Amino acid sequence: MTNRSSIFLPPDRYLGPDPAQKQIAEELYGLIANAPLVCPHGHVDPRLFSDPDYSFGTPTEMIIIPDHYIFRMLYSQGISMESLGIPRQDGGPVEQDHRKIWQTFAENFYLFRGTPTGVWLNYSFDYVFGVEQKLNGETAQAIYDQIADCLQKPAFRPRALFEQFNVEVLTTTDTATDPLEHHQAIRDSGWSGRILPTFRPDAVINLDAAGWRENIDQLGERVGYEVSSYGKFIDALENRRAFFKSMGATATDHAALTPYTNQLSPAEAEAIFQRALQGQASADDARLFTGHMLMEMARMSTEDGLVMQLHPGSLRSHNTAVFERFGVDKGGDIPIQTEYTNNLRPLLTRYGSDPRLTLILFTLDETTYGRELAPLAGHYPAVKLGPPWWFFDSLNGMDYFFHKVSETAGIYNTVGFNDDTRAFPSIPARHDVWRRATAHWVAGLHVRGIVDMEDAEAMMHDLAYNLAKQAYKFN
Amino acid sequence: MTNRSSIFLPPDRYLGPDPAQKQIAEELYGLIANAPLVCPHGHVDPRLFSDPDYSFGTPTEMIIIPDHYIFRMLYSQGISMESLGIPRQDGGPVEQDHRKIWQTFAENFYLFRGTPTGVWLNYSFDYVFGVEQKLNGETAQAIYDQIADCLQKPAFRPRALFEQFNVEVLTTTDTATDPLEHHQAIRDSGWSGRILPTFRPDAVINLDAAGWRENIDQLGERVGYEVSSYGKFIDALENRRAFFKSMGATATDHAALTPYTNQLSPAEAEAIFQRALQGQASADDARLFTGHMLMEMARMSTEDGLVMQLHPGSLRSHNTAVFERFGVDKGGDIPIQTEYTNNLRPLLTRYGSDPRLTLILFTLDETTYGRELAPLAGHYPAVKLGPPWWFFDSLNGMDYFFHKVSETAGIYNTVGFNDDTRAFPSIPARHDVWRRATAHWVAGLHVRGIVDMEDAEAMMHDLAYNLAKQAYKFN
Amino acid sequence: MTNRSSIFLPPDRYLGPDPAQKQIAEELYGLIANAPLVCPHGHVDPRLFSDPDYSFGTPTEMIIIPDHYIFRMLYSQGISMESLGIPRQDGGPVEQDHRKIWQTFAENFYLFRGTPTGVWLNYSFDYVFGVEQKLNGETAQAIYDQIADCLQKPAFRPRALFEQFNVEVLTTTDTATDPLEHHQAIRDSGWSGRILPTFRPDAVINLDAAGWRENIDQLGERVGYEVSSYGKFIDALENRRAFFKSMGATATDHAALTPYTNQLSPAEAEAIFQRALQGQASADDARLFTGHMLMEMARMSTEDGLVMQLHPGSLRSHNTAVFERFGVDKGGDIPIQTEYTNNLRPLLTRYGSDPRLTLILFTLDETTYGRELAPLAGHYPAVKLGPPWWFFDSLNGMDYFFHKVSETAGIYNTVGFNDDTRAFPSIPARHDVWRRATAHWVAGLHVRGIVDMEDAEAMMHDLAYNLAKQAYKFN
Repeated sequence: MTNRSSIFLPPDRYLGPDPAQKQIAEELYGLIANAPLVCPHGHVDPRLFSDPDYSFGTPTEMIIIPDHYIFRMLYSQGISMESLGIPRQDGGPVEQDHRKIWQTFAENFYLFRGTPTGVWLNYSFDYVFGVEQKLNGETAQAIYDQIADCLQKPAFRPRALFEQFNVEVLTTTDTATDPLEHHQAIRDSGWSGRILPTFRPDAVINLDAAGWRENIDQLGERVGYEVSSYGKFIDALENRRAFFKSMGATATDHAALTPYTNQLSPAEAEAIFQRALQGQASADDARLFTGHMLMEMARMSTEDGLVMQLHPGSLRSHNTAVFERFGVDKGGDIPIQTEYTNNLRPLLTRYGSDPRLTLILFTLDETTYGRELAPLAGHYPAVKLGPPWWFFDSLNGMDYFFHKVSETAGIYNTVGFNDDTRAFPSIPARHDVWRRATAHWVAGLHVRGIVDMEDAEAMMHDLAYNLAKQAYKFN
Repeated sequence: MTNRSSIFLPPDRYLGPDPAQKQIAEELYGLIANAPLVCPHGHVDPRLFSDPDYSFGTPTEMIIIPDHYIFRMLYSQGISMESLGIPRQDGGPVEQDHRKIWQTFAENFYLFRGTPTGVWLNYSFDYVFGVEQKLNGETAQAIYDQIADCLQKPAFRPRALFEQFNVEVLTTTDTATDPLEHHQAIRDSGWSGRILPTFRPDAVINLDAAGWRENIDQLGERVGYEVSSYGKFIDALENRRAFFKSMGATATDHAALTPYTNQLSPAEAEAIFQRALQGQASADDARLFTGHMLMEMARMSTEDGLVMQLHPGSLRSHNTAVFERFGVDKGGDIPIQTEYTNNLRPLLTRYGSDPRLTLILFTLDETTYGRELAPLAGHYPAVKLGPPWWFFDSLNGMDYFFHKVSETAGIYNTVGFNDDTRAFPSIPARHDVWRRATAHWVAGLHVRGIVDMEDAEAMMHDLAYNLAKQAYKFN
Repeated sequence: MTNRSSIFLPPDRYLGPDPAQKQIAEELYGLIANAPLVCPHGHVDPRLFSDPDYSFGTPTEMIIIPDHYIFRMLYSQGISMESLGIPRQDGGPVEQDHRKIWQTFAENFYLFRGTPTGVWLNYSFDYVFGVEQKLNGETAQAIYDQIADCLQKPAFRPRALFEQFNVEVLTTTDTATDPLEHHQAIRDSGWSGRILPTFRPDAVINLDAAGWRENIDQLGERVGYEVSSYGKFIDALENRRAFFKSMGATATDHAALTPYTNQLSPAEAEAIFQRALQGQASADDARLFTGHMLMEMARMSTEDGLVMQLHPGSLRSHNTAVFERFGVDKGGDIPIQTEYTNNLRPLLTRYGSDPRLTLILFTLDETTYGRELAPLAGHYPAVKLGPPWWFFDSLNGMDYFFHKVSETAGIYNTVGFNDDTRAFPSIPARHDVWRRATAHWVAGLHVRGIVDMEDAEAMMHDLAYNLAKQAYKFN
């Protein structure tokens, strides 16, 4: 048979087309191709690692059902969520035959032509599972069998893959009220894999979060006193941050519809908090409170040193019908225009020049890269830019990011790569795309006489490894 | 003499520069270079085809006077509209010497260097009229003569060109009150060319449309009863849609300043409609009513199956002085920022997952491609993306579209190409640009190892022909 | 030793990577590589030329302390402004050891990898000062010595460099109240260098400008009467414009947060002006007055022929802490979203078709290139587009500008290049980047068969030299 790699994973992939640039890119890529993976921002479930015998289940359970990148595309072409086995909120029936779901996926795999999801899946099939055929309706069941066989083997337990993938550190994302018992179990197990939590308090900070009142009660349980006032709320958050830090956390993570920030007086904050406790907070209260709490989070970061991450701009669950039937994170989150210059001014005026703060900004609005984010990062000591996020975690997204950000911010106000994924087996694929995209871009700078090879090589090491490690304080 | 194609229409045009990518692109282009043209969205006058002896008139009448892409550029450099023979609203004198107008055009043809209009004109001169010289002040009259000679010949009648161009289907754009008598005449003539109407009701839906009240009266005449209430208005629109459908229409087309949608109650809609009948509708009434009627149009599409097209974002007749003197469509329409995520949410929540609806979205705000449109199309079953529109119907516009849309939406949530033109002789040029731009882009995916040749070839057939045919339900 | 140019300034820099395109680009670049520099928009201090013995001081005084492009990047990485010798507003102590500042700069010069500032600095070091080593911590002092030696020599006086750089004309930017005594001194000196003033009245037009009331008093002193009414204000401005014109000015220059325009009645304008004189103008007054005065400036331009430049969209001194300690222009100006279509409509409706007006628009919001600016320039006779500005005066910025603007506006609605710099020694570097970026882009059009070589060569001459000269009326 032909070399499968020549079909869909050629060794020089993503680096071309110009031969001179490609040659330099291959040289640069070679420098860091095997560097350890630093994974400072993601959504892998820590259960994968707390149970040494954790199994991914069927290929469908591992690859399709948990991945909204995949099922949103199938849904967009009229394939129902039920037929893909996506659990309903009401517990109603959905397809249970995982081979049938896989067959549907395979027959529609052509939809992913030219998409990052297609790229990641082909990588996983090939490099992780040794699949030598192209996925389609004919090959579906054979490939299912092959992956299912793999998943029975010890080498495909999460801990074994973690080591095989050469992950140096992996962070999870955890609510403020998470007891972190899986992280504790990992520590207690004596396994050497470095899995760290990240403090994400959206569910107690955003007054309009689902179940906010219950989340506050749970927060009280965690800290051992009733969170009955704004002052106690602040105390509780500081308490939880200290706990996360004691468990190895180096960062916090914050989502908001917009990056609005504004300092309230303690009395104003207390008044809103009391309205919220009584279920009477308005939409405007929620907006003001989140804007205020982002400033408080920045303050706490200056004190405890946790790196602060902010990624605004996603209108969650745009399709209310899908949300009501299937819940959150079901592919219907749609970006909106985002404004950083005015919105972040109060926070940056107060904390942006503080050497103790690192504020990493993400965006779903690429228009802000060159207009707002790079100028902010190229001035404020605290501001760094996260890599292309979500829809832009792709070859074109990375290329655009480099072109729009690097000239004003330089690469030293960026933080390398985040894989930001729930799909653990896709992690090497995502880093491979980043490293190749980086090699291609840096090689382009070199062949056009903008940086010499000494600089190009240093930039590669920094973008592939050093910047992420430094920015997130992994020592 | 030298081969004229080497001067301005080389056979490998638009496909480079990289030789390896170009070779693949030429191979891919070759697959579909001669595929029939599917033209599902345009503004060609059906009179061209209802009269078998229709003549285009002089070269100036055919090429310059009706084409705002051309005269806006000349106007922008201080050449008066009058000197180009553009008719005045008041019937006042304008240049009548078509050779003189042509001379002015030729002397300023350098303004179109690097523009799509320049590309299309060079194609038409060469491929349609066999012109072997470059247009400038010296060659102006000789080229005028050559084109004028052509236009005398039967081979240059619209029906003959339609066949020579290998057009499979061409749709026009027609007001809701159009009796479609030219379409009827085409059908009655026995000519086999497939010319279909498209239902565009802006002039009765947008309360602030010029002559709205008269348009409503005319609508009443068409349906045979006075449109005196909102209920009768809805009935009349359904009636007209059924008539258009009976005449072969497969689609509707809607323009609005913004894509705002919002469902009114029947009582609210009736109240606004009554105010409008009495000439008392406010700007806000108009906005609310258009937003409501877009939802009604979506509802009707779920019932009658007509594909719905929406292209917002053009501030029409920005230059009021030119508008008052020369009327609409005179090159002074300027795009504005456009917001889809929030604006379309009511419509999409109600109809976006309905398998009977196809909603094709266009934009003049490229920032929405990756941020809003691709995520919407990559989730909602109803949503598909139209090709780059108007100012972006160009090599750069297409390249940007592919880069911004394909990774999130995939190509299967797009609808191939629309030529969207009034200029019938430019149709092959426009499809040629699209097919070459597509071949270049797909070849780039292949040479970088993202898709194999089997996929690349399938994508070419889909982008050049299949997607348009399927999306617009041409069977 | 190795040829230093092969290290960081190869002769084919910025033109690749494709060899065929590069060969054409080198040919095109060669046509205009030595064309005189036309510099119609910049911030060089006229003192450099009024004093024939003017010296730049130390390398640190020439290169670092005045250049916010440089120190903002160092500041963004936590290096204090004080340690870079940036003067404090309160006169407090800052680093005085210029060798030490230079050492800090050199050790952090890697931050500029891939940035335009890095490109310009490398060019200046090499071409202007003959430095053959790469700047870093080890080479810092040797390079300092080499530049300091140069600066002692007559060949490095500004007038000598002006001639060596082959500058044909250089304009400065001067407040409305500037007596232009340095320009007068240059004229009186008999030196042949052409240095012209530009009329920039922001400080008297923008009611919220720092020291507005004092500026008005100063304006009164210049014109010889108290500016006690709106009518006298208009008279005074016309008076000063006439004075600037008599001193060789061909243009005015206007900054505003937004491009809002709106005509006030004389009574409304007078009322606002009186409130401002009494220190009682509101923020809304200021906005309305600036919007009105932009229209008045357009009117005056139709009368006196001065070219009008408008560059909105910078939120100045975003970092209030830095502003309070170090003053304006300290690297903390951050762009905001900008809207031109609606904002400029009043001005363009009234003056946009007037053949006497040239209105050159700049932007810090690249999203407006294709959506708003190119359509406006491609229609209105008065509108021309300035080159990529500030953060976008870069290789990527220029490439993006060409791709977004040229198809709709054509290059003949653009005005070539502006270097827009305070850093006189960087002027040749900036023009070199523009000329190479232009050659690369035009070569790309040629190798893809869009323009023939005759057109390509004409475009090069126009973009590198003719357009700037014509647009700014340098005869």
